[in-house]
Amino acid sequence: MFRFELLKKDPSCEARLGKIFTPHGEVTTPVFMPVATQGTVKSLIPETVHELGAEMILTNTYHLYLRPGHDIIRNLGGLHKFMNWSSPILTDSGGFQVYSLGALRKITDNGVVFQSHIDGSRHFITPELAVEIQEALGSDIMMSLDECTPYPASFEEAEKSLDLTVKWAKRCRSSKKNDHQFLFGIIQGGIYPELRMRALENISTNIGFDGYALGGLSVGEPKEEMLGITEMTAPLLPHDKPRYLMGVGMPEDIVACVGYGIDMFDCVIPTRCARNGLLFTNREKVVIKHARYRDDDSPVDSTCDCYTCRNYTRAYLRHLYMAKEILAMTLNTIHNIRYFMHLMERIRSAIKDGIYQEFKNSFFEKSRDTVISQQI
Amino acid sequence: MFRFELLKKDPSCEARLGKIFTPHGEVTTPVFMPVATQGTVKSLIPETVHELGAEMILTNTYHLYLRPGHDIIRNLGGLHKFMNWSSPILTDSGGFQVYSLGALRKITDNGVVFQSHIDGSRHFITPELAVEIQEALGSDIMMSLDECTPYPASFEEAEKSLDLTVKWAKRCRSSKKNDHQFLFGIIQGGIYPELRMRALENISTNIGFDGYALGGLSVGEPKEEMLGITEMTAPLLPHDKPRYLMGVGMPEDIVACVGYGIDMFDCVIPTRCARNGLLFTNREKVVIKHARYRDDDSPVDSTCDCYTCRNYTRAYLRHLYMAKEILAMTLNTIHNIRYFMHLMERIRSAIKDGIYQEFKNSFFEKSRDTVISQQI
Repeated sequence: MFRFELLKKDPSCEARLGKIFTPHGEVTTPVFMPVATQGTVKSLIPETVHELGAEMILTNTYHLYLRPGHDIIRNLGGLHKFMNWSSPILTDSGGFQVYSLGALRKITDNGVVFQSHIDGSRHFITPELAVEIQEALGSDIMMSLDECTPYPASFEEAEKSLDLTVKWAKRCRSSKKNDHQFLFGIIQGGIYPELRMRALENISTNIGFDGYALGGLSVGEPKEEMLGITEMTAPLLPHDKPRYLMGVGMPEDIVACVGYGIDMFDCVIPTRCARNGLLFTNREKVVIKHARYRDDDSPVDSTCDCYTCRNYTRAYLRHLYMAKEILAMTLNTIHNIRYFMHLMERIRSAIKDGIYQEFKNSFFEKSRDTVISQQI
Repeated sequence: MFRFELLKKDPSCEARLGKIFTPHGEVTTPVFMPVATQGTVKSLIPETVHELGAEMILTNTYHLYLRPGHDIIRNLGGLHKFMNWSSPILTDSGGFQVYSLGALRKITDNGVVFQSHIDGSRHFITPELAVEIQEALGSDIMMSLDECTPYPASFEEAEKSLDLTVKWAKRCRSSKKNDHQFLFGIIQGGIYPELRMRALENISTNIGFDGYALGGLSVGEPKEEMLGITEMTAPLLPHDKPRYLMGVGMPEDIVACVGYGIDMFDCVIPTRCARNGLLFTNREKVVIKHARYRDDDSPVDSTCDCYTCRNYTRAYLRHLYMAKEILAMTLNTIHNIRYFMHLMERIRSAIKDGIYQEFKNSFFEKSRDTVISQQI
């Protein structure tokens, strides 16, 4: 049932247009997945997320495992039904949050022990359990449990971490029980090209998954490192499988990495920035609390077709934000998600037309102009 | 342009069916107005409020005067445009919030001095300014500035307070500048029938307004006092004008007071309770955080037609609430407002059918059964 179809490759770079087929519908790539950490894209009903153009969302296994618990979600008919989202869902493995949120964590060959950030309860996650939880949730795409190599890490540390990730990847692959959910492998290796190559060989050639993710990036390393590793690694991943760059990113990172051959992205940036009053536009980033917007009767972005831009002024959005109104978060999130979805539409359209390199150059030129005009 | 039409009076009690005509549309009474304190019904987009059946909302003059300021709203085209709500709006006078939220307030014959609860700035509100602010906002129904007599108050205190309210009412009436906004007078007098009678005579017979509100109720007095004063006063108000019981209330209070001849209600109960996880149903009040709902696959109310009940389980709503998700507030608010709107539909239908007394008895019988079954 799961299938990836490569529809087109841009002649001038690695950018690809594709389609992922899942039991919950099709997803056109390159795709950006809004993040629904606890089973909700914060502040939006799922119909709105869908209308904004989102075809697939990401939810966090760690959070749902701890609360409300994967057994409860399974018994209620699975995550799609639970959260009223009938399109595809990707679940992460929970590994990243164990490392970033869990307390007193201890990693052994067999798995990872940690304390819940909610109530301090102790948990032991093995690769097999990570798959079992995701099977209970019923996501369309599951991720293997990995050790997310931190930055900075020495070559030896990154190598040890990669070895563990490879072992766990094998165990995840073996423990998967059903055919209607698909499992992605994760390429680690820190910022070391040699280790990334080794990861590629082990994860894709030796084990083999339904798709591949680049992990351990966007974890604090300089942006050039992230871009460099992605540029080097992505084109070497199997051409007939989707390629997913985890946790990325800013619009300019997405535009760059599509050019390196990445098909899938996820990031909290549009939603988190929205809640903090930072709004994306093609011209500038609007910090809505600024006093200059107090009587501004224009929309956030006059070229944007979203509900927020069609119905509200910057002055009203500023008022809601200053008054700490919940609706501020909703309206801002609608706009930012729409910005990202529209960006992905433009990206796909450029690849379709075989002009991705031009699109990319023009995008960065405009961004540069914006930066300069903001400095002036 | 403003007009009130009495469509029907129930033969067995004081309940009335009516229609208010405003420049922004018609409102069928008895009506319940959801509260949009700062220019938003908390957590909902206005289209949703409208779809739930709300025909008129209430916004708070005090809050909008302080932030963003009535001049800004006037310059942006008025409150309807500012908040994207094209149906009728009633604004309170700001008086109640000056007394309950403002600091260091000092009342003189001329007006009231207070400090903003937001930034401590000093303000002086006169009856004329209260009208001017509401004219700037452009609401359909404005309220006169009154002194809300606190509870408890001695007869002498209540009398003095009433005298001031009457003086201010005259000044509000004289200062009103345009014809497309309508001004209601407020009947004070505390819990003293003699003073309520005097207020009636002064406010309605001597001055005369487009409609009349009962004020100074639901301010801490025993519920029997509120019901008693309303039962006594409401039927004596002019029959050809709308009657508004300010700040009321619980479903059972609304059902009782419609029977006394009240046409209009507003209260934060449905919205505030929703945010606190208390959900109204005809059978019981659902405290959504209770552990018993953790795996409950039924909707909040299987007889409810709202978006929340049609799409989500109690288990999901509990999860959102426990996880402090914004969507919890949105989905709960949708349900509670729909409960109140549906109650008003049932009330109007019973009056139309001339069976309000039966409806009321049956409503209280069911409430009693619920209370008893909850005690068991």
